[in-house]
Amino acid sequence: MKIAIINGPNLNLLGTREPSVYGSQTFEQYYSLLKKGYPAIDFSYYQSNVEGELINQIQYYAHTCDGVILNPGGYTHTSVAIGDCIAAFSTPVIEVHISNVHAREDFRKISHVSAKCKGSIVGLGLKGYELAVQWLIAFYK
Amino acid sequence: MKIAIINGPNLNLLGTREPSVYGSQTFEQYYSLLKKGYPAIDFSYYQSNVEGELINQIQYYAHTCDGVILNPGGYTHTSVAIGDCIAAFSTPVIEVHISNVHAREDFRKISHVSAKCKGSIVGLGLKGYELAVQWLIAFYK
Amino acid sequence: MKIAIINGPNLNLLGTREPSVYGSQTFEQYYSLLKKGYPAIDFSYYQSNVEGELINQIQYYAHTCDGVILNPGGYTHTSVAIGDCIAAFSTPVIEVHISNVHAREDFRKISHVSAKCKGSIVGLGLKGYELAVQWLIAFYK
Amino acid sequence: MKIAIINGPNLNLLGTREPSVYGSQTFEQYYSLLKKGYPAIDFSYYQSNVEGELINQIQYYAHTCDGVILNPGGYTHTSVAIGDCIAAFSTPVIEVHISNVHAREDFRKISHVSAKCKGSIVGLGLKGYELAVQWLIAFYK
Amino acid sequence: MKIAIINGPNLNLLGTREPSVYGSQTFEQYYSLLKKGYPAIDFSYYQSNVEGELINQIQYYAHTCDGVILNPGGYTHTSVAIGDCIAAFSTPVIEVHISNVHAREDFRKISHVSAKCKGSIVGLGLKGYELAVQWLIAFYK
Amino acid sequence: MKIAIINGPNLNLLGTREPSVYGSQTFEQYYSLLKKGYPAIDFSYYQSNVEGELINQIQYYAHTCDGVILNPGGYTHTSVAIGDCIAAFSTPVIEVHISNVHAREDFRKISHVSAKCKGSIVGLGLKGYELAVQWLIAFYK
Amino acid sequence: MKIAIINGPNLNLLGTREPSVYGSQTFEQYYSLLKKGYPAIDFSYYQSNVEGELINQIQYYAHTCDGVILNPGGYTHTSVAIGDCIAAFSTPVIEVHISNVHAREDFRKISHVSAKCKGSIVGLGLKGYELAVQWLIAFYK
Amino acid sequence: MKIAIINGPNLNLLGTREPSVYGSQTFEQYYSLLKKGYPAIDFSYYQSNVEGELINQIQYYAHTCDGVILNPGGYTHTSVAIGDCIAAFSTPVIEVHISNVHAREDFRKISHVSAKCKGSIVGLGLKGYELAVQWLIAFYK
Amino acid sequence: MKIAIINGPNLNLLGTREPSVYGSQTFEQYYSLLKKGYPAIDFSYYQSNVEGELINQIQYYAHTCDGVILNPGGYTHTSVAIGDCIAAFSTPVIEVHISNVHAREDFRKISHVSAKCKGSIVGLGLKGYELAVQWLIAFYK
Amino acid sequence: MKIAIINGPNLNLLGTREPSVYGSQTFEQYYSLLKKGYPAIDFSYYQSNVEGELINQIQYYAHTCDGVILNPGGYTHTSVAIGDCIAAFSTPVIEVHISNVHAREDFRKISHVSAKCKGSIVGLGLKGYELAVQWLIAFYK
Amino acid sequence: MKIAIINGPNLNLLGTREPSVYGSQTFEQYYSLLKKGYPAIDFSYYQSNVEGELINQIQYYAHTCDGVILNPGGYTHTSVAIGDCIAAFSTPVIEVHISNVHAREDFRKISHVSAKCKGSIVGLGLKGYELAVQWLIAFYK
Amino acid sequence: MKIAIINGPNLNLLGTREPSVYGSQTFEQYYSLLKKGYPAIDFSYYQSNVEGELINQIQYYAHTCDGVILNPGGYTHTSVAIGDCIAAFSTPVIEVHISNVHAREDFRKISHVSAKCKGSIVGLGLKGYELAVQWLIAFYK
Repeated sequence: MKIAIINGPNLNLLGTREPSVYGSQTFEQYYSLLKKGYPAIDFSYYQSNVEGELINQIQYYAHTCDGVILNPGGYTHTSVAIGDCIAAFSTPVIEVHISNVHAREDFRKISHVSAKCKGSIVGLGLKGYELAVQWLIAFYK
Repeated sequence: MKIAIINGPNLNLLGTREPSVYGSQTFEQYYSLLKKGYPAIDFSYYQSNVEGELINQIQYYAHTCDGVILNPGGYTHTSVAIGDCIAAFSTPVIEVHISNVHAREDFRKISHVSAKCKGSIVGLGLKGYELAVQWLIAFYK
Repeated sequence: MKIAIINGPNLNLLGTREPSVYGSQTFEQYYSLLKKGYPAIDFSYYQSNVEGELINQIQYYAHTCDGVILNPGGYTHTSVAIGDCIAAFSTPVIEVHISNVHAREDFRKISHVSAKCKGSIVGLGLKGYELAVQWLIAFYK
Repeated sequence: MKIAIINGPNLNLLGTREPSVYGSQTFEQYYSLLKKGYPAIDFSYYQSNVEGELINQIQYYAHTCDGVILNPGGYTHTSVAIGDCIAAFSTPVIEVHISNVHAREDFRKISHVSAKCKGSIVGLGLKGYELAVQWLIAFYK
Repeated sequence: MKIAIINGPNLNLLGTREPSVYGSQTFEQYYSLLKKGYPAIDFSYYQSNVEGELINQIQYYAHTCDGVILNPGGYTHTSVAIGDCIAAFSTPVIEVHISNVHAREDFRKISHVSAKCKGSIVGLGLKGYELAVQWLIAFYK
Repeated sequence: MKIAIINGPNLNLLGTREPSVYGSQTFEQYYSLLKKGYPAIDFSYYQSNVEGELINQIQYYAHTCDGVILNPGGYTHTSVAIGDCIAAFSTPVIEVHISNVHAREDFRKISHVSAKCKGSIVGLGLKGYELAVQWLIAFYK
Repeated sequence: MKIAIINGPNLNLLGTREPSVYGSQTFEQYYSLLKKGYPAIDFSYYQSNVEGELINQIQYYAHTCDGVILNPGGYTHTSVAIGDCIAAFSTPVIEVHISNVHAREDFRKISHVSAKCKGSIVGLGLKGYELAVQWLIAFYK
Repeated sequence: MKIAIINGPNLNLLGTREPSVYGSQTFEQYYSLLKKGYPAIDFSYYQSNVEGELINQIQYYAHTCDGVILNPGGYTHTSVAIGDCIAAFSTPVIEVHISNVHAREDFRKISHVSAKCKGSIVGLGLKGYELAVQWLIAFYK
Repeated sequence: MKIAIINGPNLNLLGTREPSVYGSQTFEQYYSLLKKGYPAIDFSYYQSNVEGELINQIQYYAHTCDGVILNPGGYTHTSVAIGDCIAAFSTPVIEVHISNVHAREDFRKISHVSAKCKGSIVGLGLKGYELAVQWLIAFYK
Repeated sequence: MKIAIINGPNLNLLGTREPSVYGSQTFEQYYSLLKKGYPAIDFSYYQSNVEGELINQIQYYAHTCDGVILNPGGYTHTSVAIGDCIAAFSTPVIEVHISNVHAREDFRKISHVSAKCKGSIVGLGLKGYELAVQWLIAFYK
Repeated sequence: MKIAIINGPNLNLLGTREPSVYGSQTFEQYYSLLKKGYPAIDFSYYQSNVEGELINQIQYYAHTCDGVILNPGGYTHTSVAIGDCIAAFSTPVIEVHISNVHAREDFRKISHVSAKCKGSIVGLGLKGYELAVQWLIAFYK
Repeated sequence: MKIAIINGPNLNLLGTREPSVYGSQTFEQYYSLLKKGYPAIDFSYYQSNVEGELINQIQYYAHTCDGVILNPGGYTHTSVAIGDCIAAFSTPVIEVHISNVHAREDFRKISHVSAKCKGSIVGLGLKGYELAVQWLIAFYK
């Protein structure tokens, strides 16, 4: 079983940015623990700050993986093109947000991505990525 | 460890209503399997169609449990009072929706509950309740 | 043939509240005349000020009757949960309003119920309930 | 007793347009059955696709009839002038819509006509016209 | 000097509709007094309830008169096409409303006509037509 | 003289919820002091989290008391039905809010209750209830 | 007969500001010609850039004159207080705007003054003041 | 192959109105050249300023032609009834606008017609009609 | 203890304006009775129609008094500057409105002042000023 | 004559994504047929999912070609920067959309690109590109 | 070279109001240092809380100075009249705000002044006034 | 002291695009003069049309410089991700716009960047960059 994790803009700053909010763990550290916990799964990981490169990779992984876990960061609220990309494939895409976007600025209430995904996990920290993995495992059982 | 699951209006219809969308499993059947899977946890379950009774029970369980898993159904979009109730306690409340509310009518984009919860799991079916349980277990580890 | 009439909040005040607008007849008086006029029909009647109890009864009558006539009163404009409840059944539900809600405050222009009903009869007084009965008779002929 | 029925734009297509939705009966066929059912009533019927001609006829019939049954079609949502015309007379005007406009596009939620009519019957098919006739009969009894 | 007065929908009801508000004078009576008061001016008068016929006449009079006085009635708030028509000519068009539209329903705050006219006279009764005549006389002096 | 005090959802938490904001006094403690201060007045007190039960009690007390002091809590912003209920009676109803709702979230700017009450006292703490009592005393003097 | 003309902010710049648009006549020059043309009328004139001083003078002239001609300038769109002031008196107040405000920025579509005045004359240049005078003369005939 | 071209309000002014923007060619001149260029096609042409007459003709041509080319002029932005009419037929209707409506006033951003047509050609001048013809030819090949 | 009462625009008309609504008592008469009732308090009173002078006085009294009672009249809905002024001081400011602003025009639902005050008393007539005095007395006890 | 075709995000999926809607032809296949049909024209083609690279290429081709045919895909609705880029050049840019965007989600009604282009061809399938080519040929004749 | 600095409402409180945010320097102290730093410039300074007096002074200084530096305080968001005043002159007016208004309440996102000024300097503290001076020096070099 | 200047989309066109508005100087020419004027400062310069590459560089320079001067061009109004990036660092970022964006299209009134920056300099031409440099020099003094 192949699962791709794709992180959007500014998520490369995890562990250094506002550690009191986001913790001091980098995503790479978390990712390496996650892979250890699920040795039967073939994981891929990609991060970019460029909207179009995220689209390139969603297209690529939606073709070659069984599931995609996507944290679109700030593009959640502005990218019709990422939403269109997800809608073009039947591979399940799970949206993950580390913090509770509903409790932040009003402009974060608009999402062009959520409606196109299978579902969303929001506000449950880095643990949200693992819950998405567990859902994909259950989905294909 | 004590966890309460609270379901809002019309969720008592699960298994009979639109089985092609929601499956033919009743919540009681799902709940009994869930309890078997996590024997160490002391579960409670409550369902009501009455907004104020849901508030009564959120108040009660937020006092007496380690975590609350709440599917507010249609009250998600209209109940300031449920949101106020959650905000009054520090017990983690996880919001769960079976279907992807973001992909439905526009009025479902307004939520008075999400911002007051710890986080949300949306669109991942009944499995969403179990993911919430797993998050609570990890949270208290 | 079984028909249920369900009245929402404040409709228990009929006959005493603003008699110049709503007439001095109570709903019970009207209901007893209506039953006499249609002796072949098995009528039920329920009124409550509690949104969730209305949902309980809509669920019950939608299972056990051939048609439901619903005046949701003030919940028309605020209750997603009543709308969801109606949508869960194929039993025809006819919405009735005694006064012309379109000619009143702006917030009464929003309805979470109308789109989920078979149809609506608005502004035609207590006679609207009888017209709904006649429609149900014609519908099943 | 004299009753006029006035149909707005595109209602001349009834019976040929989307018969699965609107039925295969033309309005003329329905109208001729309706007249047979109420021989004591002196009916008039008028249809036009032209907003101003509808106003001409509403003015005319509001002067010469005891009641007007009006299906303003698409002008419901855009015609301030038809609304003004109805408001200028005390003759009761009953608005009828064959389909449930509340369950269709958002722009159909705006009505410039409903607030000026005595009441509305919506979504109850061609039967809605007959219910309006029955209301007028009861109104003048 | 040639001046055309064009009245829109329902203004043919003047004198009979709500005389306590609009007075009991018909427009024809007023018009005949107005013509007597300004014998040097060659007046034309046109009224229609049909939007497109109003456009036909505005086109005609804008070509053949020195000024047009227009009361677009209910089309003020909905007719982009009348606004486009006025904008296509350089002949001065003066908008007149008998009652104060600003003090009425909210939807009357939208005007597709006012911005295209030379100016507007609102709420000053039938006298508003004469003031428009006086402005045109002064304009060409 | 009979005065009823009715408190809406979550106000039963007073004294335990956020004591730094709301103080550590429970409403019962406050209420018992209030009654002592005005021995000539016959007070009643009711609290519920259920919207419809609040309506039941407003109906009851509006019939049997000289004045009602109402803190609708979160239902202030969402309950058309409570507003309708108050409008059905001529008994003066005074709205009280302990905290300054105008200084909180945007959705609290919408009120379906304030326009139907005699007046409102907002942000002046528990003292607001006593000021409402004093107003009622003065009103009946 | 006594008529007061009150000009709001920046109208003291008339004649020097954008003469290609507003002409090179100052208001004082226009006013002196106007007075000559109507010797039987006792005119007063006041201009201020201060909203509250305009209110002071509207109060004063509404008490002591037969009519007020008011050009509220930029306060038209922002002053609830001027609107309240006009509404407090029965003296007819005529609103005048020299340019066509409907053809300018969107924020000029909001008026807090127009609904409270007897009527408005907009876009007809300085001649608009004289038309207002003529209306007042006719009004009192 | 039969193609009808239908032009809405004010398009009869083409060639005389703002020739610097719209050119000095009348539509009749353009139409006569167009017919010469496509001798194998049986063209019809209709223009009206009356919304309902446009509907009459769209109904007629949608029954009797292979395609309709429609420039609804100002009715684009206000006519639900024209949109309903187009939706009632399966004959392809191509919307054409001579100027770029997207670059004009905000109210031109609302279209009740575009969503019901097969497609739109906007801002490409009179040439847009010919492109629509070519599309219809290709469509039936 | 020193308390200042500041009244905004048009409140100088009290007693003469709409006496059936506001009573025939002038504010000066009320104020003199109020002072008599609370001889231990050192009252000041100020009224102006000028927004900026109200700011000058709020600044002055917020420095020199223990509490300010402010009725901002029409500036409530438009004055960011008065709101900013109140926010700059810690002296408690109580907002008072004589009539129930929530039951009036829609634009009165916007307040730039309420959120910056300690609290508001609305719709309780002139008695509202005295209730504010009583709150200030209790606040400093 | 040199023409550049630029396709935005997800258009590289053409032929594989939803073939029932978009057909089974890839854009490359279509493009190669198009070039054969117009041998006298020097075509260039570029596709990218990256907004900024699209801007780079629009800048490049607007300098070096006689016309640009642009399908901005999902960036149509969100990219002010692409709109700014087009506005910076006088080279005609024709916007093409394969499907009828007006008939899809509401957020597709906002366009930052259309107003800056010469014109748009929408909903006419891949044929739309060829119509744009024909327009450019006619434009330079 | 003559430069006028005009400060709007509540800026006279600088140095005493929220010193942690705005510093403990009064504007007078800052102004006297600024004058020392630019001895070749003839500075004027004016502050008022009255909107109309600010207009008076902007009119005066726009006539007599080479540049105006304006901090409109709370009037930025509400004063159409100040915006009109600036637009009436060609003298460059530079808007300065000490704090970053974009990071504050939503109602501060509306500005009636910014569009009429040459430019704005926002959020850069008292230093913003000096930067405006430097721009004016460079502008006239 | 190290300062980075980052320019967003289409700013590479400066000097060639609309020279009457933006001048004929390229940014490179301006930049080279700026560097000469401040020899003690170590400047970096970066321009890209790609949103994500701008984020990459803001991240890089916010780590390695004392201040960043950012002109986000069209991304100002659409990029939540650039706003998030700036918010993740404490390095001061100054927003610069060459033209007065407040005086342009309505959609430019929305900014996702301004609230996250230290401050903004808008409409003061290329000089705005130098003013930002001066502010940074003063800030670190």
